[in-house]
Amino acid sequence: MTLRFIVVFLCGISALLVSGQPSLILTEKGLNEIRNQLGKAPLFDASLEKVRAQIDAEIARPIDVPVPVDLAGGYTHQQHKANFFNLQKAGVLFQITGEEKYAQYVRDVLMAYKELYPQLDRHPAERSYARGKFFWQCLNDANWLVYVSQAYDCIYDWLPAKERKALNKELFRPYADFLSVETPQFFNRIHNHSTWGNAAVGMIGLVMDDEELVQRALYGAREASVTGPAQDNDGGQILDKDQKMGFLAQVDEAFSPDGYYTEGPYYQRYAMYPFLIFAQALANNKPELGILNYRNGLLIKAVYALVNQTNAQGEFFPINDAQKGMSLLSRELVFGVSMAYHYGGNDPELLSIIEKQGRVPLNDAGMAAAKGITEGKTQPYTFKSIELTDGAAGDEGAIGIIRADNLTLLMKYAKHGMGHGHFDRLGFLLYDAHGEVIQDYGAARWVNIEHKDGGGYLKENHSWAKQTLAHNTLVVDKDSHFDGKVKAADQVAGTPYYFLPGDDVQIVSAKETNAYKDVAMHRTMAVVRVPELENPLVIDLFAVQAPEGTRYDLPLYYLGEFMSSNQDFETNDTLTPMGAHDGYQHLWQEAQAIAKGKVFRFTWFNKRNFFTMHSAVREGDELLLTRIGAYDPNFNLRRDPGLIHRRTSGNTLFASLYELHGSYDYTTERPLNLFTAIADFRVLHESADYVAVQFELKNGNRYVFAFSLTDDDESSRHQLQIENKNLEWTGIYNFYKTDNE
Amino acid sequence: MTLRFIVVFLCGISALLVSGQPSLILTEKGLNEIRNQLGKAPLFDASLEKVRAQIDAEIARPIDVPVPVDLAGGYTHQQHKANFFNLQKAGVLFQITGEEKYAQYVRDVLMAYKELYPQLDRHPAERSYARGKFFWQCLNDANWLVYVSQAYDCIYDWLPAKERKALNKELFRPYADFLSVETPQFFNRIHNHSTWGNAAVGMIGLVMDDEELVQRALYGAREASVTGPAQDNDGGQILDKDQKMGFLAQVDEAFSPDGYYTEGPYYQRYAMYPFLIFAQALANNKPELGILNYRNGLLIKAVYALVNQTNAQGEFFPINDAQKGMSLLSRELVFGVSMAYHYGGNDPELLSIIEKQGRVPLNDAGMAAAKGITEGKTQPYTFKSIELTDGAAGDEGAIGIIRADNLTLLMKYAKHGMGHGHFDRLGFLLYDAHGEVIQDYGAARWVNIEHKDGGGYLKENHSWAKQTLAHNTLVVDKDSHFDGKVKAADQVAGTPYYFLPGDDVQIVSAKETNAYKDVAMHRTMAVVRVPELENPLVIDLFAVQAPEGTRYDLPLYYLGEFMSSNQDFETNDTLTPMGAHDGYQHLWQEAQAIAKGKVFRFTWFNKRNFFTMHSAVREGDELLLTRIGAYDPNFNLRRDPGLIHRRTSGNTLFASLYELHGSYDYTTERPLNLFTAIADFRVLHESADYVAVQFELKNGNRYVFAFSLTDDDESSRHQLQIENKNLEWTGIYNFYKTDNE
Ligand SMILES: [Ca+2]
Ligand SMILES: [Ca+2]
Ligand SMILES: [Ca+2]
Ligand SMILES: [Mg+2]
Ligand SMILES: [Mg+2]
Ligand SMILES: [Mg+2]
Ligand SMILES: [Mg+2]
Repeated sequence: MTLRFIVVFLCGISALLVSGQPSLILTEKGLNEIRNQLGKAPLFDASLEKVRAQIDAEIARPIDVPVPVDLAGGYTHQQHKANFFNLQKAGVLFQITGEEKYAQYVRDVLMAYKELYPQLDRHPAERSYARGKFFWQCLNDANWLVYVSQAYDCIYDWLPAKERKALNKELFRPYADFLSVETPQFFNRIHNHSTWGNAAVGMIGLVMDDEELVQRALYGAREASVTGPAQDNDGGQILDKDQKMGFLAQVDEAFSPDGYYTEGPYYQRYAMYPFLIFAQALANNKPELGILNYRNGLLIKAVYALVNQTNAQGEFFPINDAQKGMSLLSRELVFGVSMAYHYGGNDPELLSIIEKQGRVPLNDAGMAAAKGITEGKTQPYTFKSIELTDGAAGDEGAIGIIRADNLTLLMKYAKHGMGHGHFDRLGFLLYDAHGEVIQDYGAARWVNIEHKDGGGYLKENHSWAKQTLAHNTLVVDKDSHFDGKVKAADQVAGTPYYFLPGDDVQIVSAKETNAYKDVAMHRTMAVVRVPELENPLVIDLFAVQAPEGTRYDLPLYYLGEFMSSNQDFETNDTLTPMGAHDGYQHLWQEAQAIAKGKVFRFTWFNKRNFFTMHSAVREGDELLLTRIGAYDPNFNLRRDPGLIHRRTSGNTLFASLYELHGSYDYTTERPLNLFTAIADFRVLHESADYVAVQFELKNGNRYVFAFSLTDDDESSRHQLQIENKNLEWTGIYNFYKTDNE
Repeated sequence: MTLRFIVVFLCGISALLVSGQPSLILTEKGLNEIRNQLGKAPLFDASLEKVRAQIDAEIARPIDVPVPVDLAGGYTHQQHKANFFNLQKAGVLFQITGEEKYAQYVRDVLMAYKELYPQLDRHPAERSYARGKFFWQCLNDANWLVYVSQAYDCIYDWLPAKERKALNKELFRPYADFLSVETPQFFNRIHNHSTWGNAAVGMIGLVMDDEELVQRALYGAREASVTGPAQDNDGGQILDKDQKMGFLAQVDEAFSPDGYYTEGPYYQRYAMYPFLIFAQALANNKPELGILNYRNGLLIKAVYALVNQTNAQGEFFPINDAQKGMSLLSRELVFGVSMAYHYGGNDPELLSIIEKQGRVPLNDAGMAAAKGITEGKTQPYTFKSIELTDGAAGDEGAIGIIRADNLTLLMKYAKHGMGHGHFDRLGFLLYDAHGEVIQDYGAARWVNIEHKDGGGYLKENHSWAKQTLAHNTLVVDKDSHFDGKVKAADQVAGTPYYFLPGDDVQIVSAKETNAYKDVAMHRTMAVVRVPELENPLVIDLFAVQAPEGTRYDLPLYYLGEFMSSNQDFETNDTLTPMGAHDGYQHLWQEAQAIAKGKVFRFTWFNKRNFFTMHSAVREGDELLLTRIGAYDPNFNLRRDPGLIHRRTSGNTLFASLYELHGSYDYTTERPLNLFTAIADFRVLHESADYVAVQFELKNGNRYVFAFSLTDDDESSRHQLQIENKNLEWTGIYNFYKTDNE
C-alpha cells in the first residue's frame, strides 16, 4: 500500500477508533496529528515504511512462543526478545494505519503467551540472582513487559472485553506481581535492573488502569519484604543501605544533577529507556506528577548528557564497561532525542542529531521532530566543553569534556561506576574528527556474540580491561587503583579541582588521593590554541606526591602506526608477558629505550593524521613499547599498541604535550606537515604548589603554561622564579608567549 | 566571481582567443563547448570552482622555484612537484575563464624555470640510474614536463613571440634533449619510466610544433646510443633485450591484449597517465596515427581493466608492490575514466564511476561526462567475472576475478611483475561489501612519508611483503617461490587452466609448475551459490604433486578477530620468530593445534560479518595462529593475524571452504547467523586426475563438487567411484546436490 493510499484510507478509519485508549505512549491527540501529517514529513514516512516492511515480513511467518530454555544469545532468548520488539511495532502500526492485521498479530501472540505463562516456573538456568519466566533473568522479562505493555495499549480497546479480561487476569497482572512482590530483590532496589522492573509494572498498570500496580511502580513493592544483600550478574551490588525503592527514587539516585550516570554513557543509553518511556506514559496519564519537570527537568537533561558524551561519529565514550560502536543511532537514543526535542522545548540543534539518526520513533515526538526537519528548522548541534558532575547530589567527582576545533578530550575523575566501573582515575581519552587518537580499551566483551563465552563479559574484562594498566593514567608499583577492589573504589570519588571551558585556553584539572596509599595524584590537562599551529595542543601535567622509590608506569594507548622517535628503541626478539597480575600479564614488551636527553618525541599516524607526543624525561626514565595480547588463550583481546613511560622517583611530574598535525591522503599520497612543529618542550618548574612548562615552536616562538596546584582562588596572586626571571600572575593558571631574546 | 558572471564574461572573450593553440589536450572546439555548457553541468562547475579556489590561493603566494637539492619527500622535490600540478591547472583556468592572471602566473613561473635551468647540472643526489635536473631522477622530471607542456600549450598563443622563443630555445628544447638523447638509459627502454619520458618529449614537441621531438617520442631517440644494462631505483631491470623503444613500442609491450599491466593495478594507475595524456594529444594533433584504435582500442580497454581491478570501495587490488587505499578517486583515474567515456563510446556505466569520483577533469572529456550525468544517463557499473591475461601477447598467465553478489575473489597466476612483483603464484584475495576478508599484505611502504625511510620501499618489503609466506598460497619447505629470485620468476608465468564466469557456479583454476623444483601446484577455486544460503560459498582445492616428505605451509591472512574453532588451540606464553628467512623471521607463532578429526573449522568476525573456514585435515596436520611483527626494529609492519595449515606429505590436496555468514550491528548489538550453516566438509576423492569434495548443510542437504585436473575438454566424459556410488559427468566440473538417503 502506498502512502498516498494510506492517507486516504485513514481519513475514513480515524473516526472509527474508540476513544480512551491508546493513551500510554501514543495518544488520541497525537495520533490525529500523526495521521494528518502522513505524507508530509518524509523522515516519519520513511521510518514508518521501514517498520511496516519489517513487521509485514514478520507477520507472514508462523508465531513462535517457545518454552524458555536458553541463556542470552540462545534461541529461545532471542525469539522472546524478537517477539517483544515486534509486538510493540505492530501495535503502533495498527494505530497509525488502522489495518487490523497488525492488531490480530498482537492478539495472537499475546494469547500464545497467556497459554504459556501458567505452565512456567522460574527459568531453568540458575545463573541469575533474580530468575525470570520467559528469560533467564527478570531484567529481560521487565524489558518484555515494557515493550509489550505498549503493544497491549494499542489494541486494548479493539480487543473483545472477554479476551482483554483474560489477558489482564491470566497474563499481565500475575506477571506484574511476579516481577514485583514475588521478586523484591529485583524490584525494590536502587539499580538499573529495578528501573526496568518499575517501568514495566507501572506501564502495564497504566494500560489496565490498575492503580495498585502504578503506586507499586512509583514507590516500591512495600508489601514485599526486602531480601538481600545480593549481587547482579555483573557483580554489581544491588542492595542499597536505606532501602529507597520505586521509580521516583530511581530518578533521585541514578543521575547526577547534570544528567550523568555513574556507569557511563554505554549503560546510561540502556538505562535511559525505561526512565524515558515510563516518564512519557506518566506525563500522558498522570500529568499532576509533573515527571518531566522532576529535579529541574532531569530526564531531558540526561538525554543531553548522552549526546554530549559522543565523538564526531556519534559514538559514546567507552569509559567503564562499554562496547565500542554504540552510538546515537541506537534505538534508545532514537526514542530519547526526539522525546527531548518534543518535550524539552523544541531545541532546533537536536534536529541535526535526529537527521543523522535517519529515523524517528513512530509517536508524537517522532512526528514533531520529522515536521521540524521538514520545515527546515535544523541547526547544527554545538558540542560545548562541559564538566558533568557525578553522584546524586553532584558532589562525587565528575568527567570533564573539552572540545576545541576537531579535538575532543575527556578526563575522568568520577565515581567508580560500581560493578561496571574501571580503575581509571584521572585517565583520559582523545579524539579527532576521524575517531580515536588515544583510546580507552572499552570492555573485553562481544555483546550477544555466543562464540565469545555466550556473549557475556569475558574473564579478560576483569584481568585486563578494568585494570589501571589498561588506561591512560598512572600505575603505581604495578598495582591497580584501590588494589582492584570495587568496594573500596565505590566509596570515594575523584576530586574536581578546576574546569575552564573557553576559547584559546581550556583546562580540566582533578585530584585523586585515595587510589593508592600515600600517593596524591593531580592531573591537569590544558587544551591551548596558538596562532602558529593548525590544531590546538594538549598539555598534560601529571603531578604526584609519593615516597621516594615509588615505581611509576604511565601508559598511553595511542592508536595507529608508530612513525618515528628521537629515542633509540631496541626491539625484542623474544616476547614474554610483562608481569603476572593487574593487567601486566596481558602485555608483551615489544621494545624499550633508556631515555636520553631532556625530551622524548614520539610520532604516530592514524587514519589520516599525524600525532606527536613530547614528554619531558629525566635520567633513568624507561620507555616501553607494548602490545596487548599475552596470556590470551581464547584470543579475546585486540592486539593494540601502547607506550609506557616508566620512572622510579618520589614526588614527580609527568609532563607531556600532544600535538595533532598534518594529514595524508591515500589517493594523492601527499603528506602535509608530517613532522612536528614543536622544537622543544620542557619543565620550567615543579613543586608541591606549582607546575610550569614551556614549549618552543620551530619558528622560535615560546609559550609558557604555569598552574597553581594548591590555590584555586581566581583572585590569588602567584609568583615564580623561572630561570632568573620573575613570573607573576593572578588566578589559577597563566598561559603566555614569551619575549624571545 | 560567480559562474553566472563567468558565462556572460566568456561570451565576450571567446572570440578574442587566437586560434591554433591550445591544441594539446584542450582544443578550440572543446573549449567552445565547455564555455557554452558552463553553469549547466554541476559536476564540471564544481570541479572548476575547486581548482579555481586552489589556484587562486596559490597565485597569492610568492613564486618558489628553488635550486634542487632534496630527494623525494624533501622540500625542493615537493615544491617542484607542486609547481607542475599548479601550472597545468592555471593554464586550463586561463583557457576556460579567460582571466589573464592565470596566464601571467604560468609565464612568471616558466620564466623562473628558464633562469634556473642553465645553472643546473644533474641533480646532486646520486641515488638514481638516471639523475634529473629539477628532481633526483629523470622520471620526476618527465612528470614535470608532461604537466608543464599542457600549461605551456594553454598560454602559447597568448605569450609575446619573443618570450615564447626564449622559452622554447632556453628551456624546453634543451630539457627535451636532456631527457632523451642525453639520457638514453632512461628514454630508450621498454619501461614505465620511459613511457613518461616519451610522453613528455612528445607533448612538448607537439606544443612547439617540433616534429623531431615528436618522432623521437614515438620511435625512440635513435640518434643516441643505448647504454646499459641498468636497474631502476626499485631494482627492476630496464634493459630490454632487443631494444624496442619509443611510445608505440611501450603500448605494444606494456599491456596485455586485455589491458592488464604486469606490475598490477597500483602501478598501472600510475603508468596509465602518460599513455592516456599523450594519446589524447596525439588524437588531437595526429589523427592519422589512430592512436585510440591502436591494438583494438587497447588504451581505453586498459582503463576498463583498472576499473575491474577494484573492490566495493573502488580500491585497487593490492597485488605486487602496492599501497592499499589507492583507488578510482586518484587523479589519474579521474582523468582516465572520463577519457574512456568520451573517447570510448559514451558507456553510461562509466558515469556511475565518475559520480563516485565526484569530480571531472577540466577538459572536453570531463565536460562530456558531466553533461551525461546531468542528463541522467548514468547506469550502475556491472562488475563482471573476468579473466585478464598477462603478457604483451596475452599468453603469459592471467588474473582471474570472480564476482558473486557481494563477494569478490581474485586469483593470481600472472607474470611475476618484474621488480615490483611478489612471489605469490596461485595466491588469492577475498572481499565482501565492506572490504578485505582475506588480505594480501600489499607493499611494506609508506609512500612519501619521510618518517619511514624517506617514504621509499622499506627493507621489510623484501624480507616480508614480497615473500610467498606473506601470501595466501603454498609455501614449500619454508622457501619462497623461485627461491625469491626475480630473474627466475620473470621468465615463466602461471598457467591458466580453466575460467568459468557465470551464475551459480563460477570457477578459476590455474597451475604453477615452476615455482618449486619437482613440485606441481594446481589450485581450483569455485564460487557456488546454493539456494539454502544467504551468500555464495568459495571452494578452494589446492592440489600438489611433490615428493614424499615435503613440508607444506598454507597461510591464510584472514582479517578481523578470531571467534571460535572446533580445534583446541594452545597459546604460547613466550613468542619467538618462526624462522630466519623467507618471511618466517617476521612471524610470531601465537598458538598451535595438532589437528583432530576430519575437519578444521575456524570462525572469525570482521567489521560487520562472520566468516567460517572449513578445511579438511588429516592426521599430523598442524594449525598455527600467527601474528606479523617479529624482527621489525622500526615498527614497519602491521600486527595482522594469520593462520597456517602445515602438513608434511607427498602428493596431497588442501581442500577448504570459505563461508561468509550473518552480520552484527554495534548499535542493535544483535548478531544474525553467527554460526556456520555447514555441518560437514570433506574430500571424497583425490588423485592426479580428479578432486571431489562434499559439504553438508545443517539441514542435511549435501552438495558435491568434482573437478577434472588434467582434461579440460568441455566434451570429455568423466567417471569416478565415490563411496560405492558411480559419479559420471561431462565437462571439466560437476556441482550437484546429492540425494539424501
Ligand atoms: Ca596490591
Ligand atoms: Ca592488585
Ligand atoms: Ca629462499
Ligand atoms: Mg549490572
Ligand atoms: Mg576503561
Ligand atoms: Mg620501478
Ligand atoms: Mg603481495
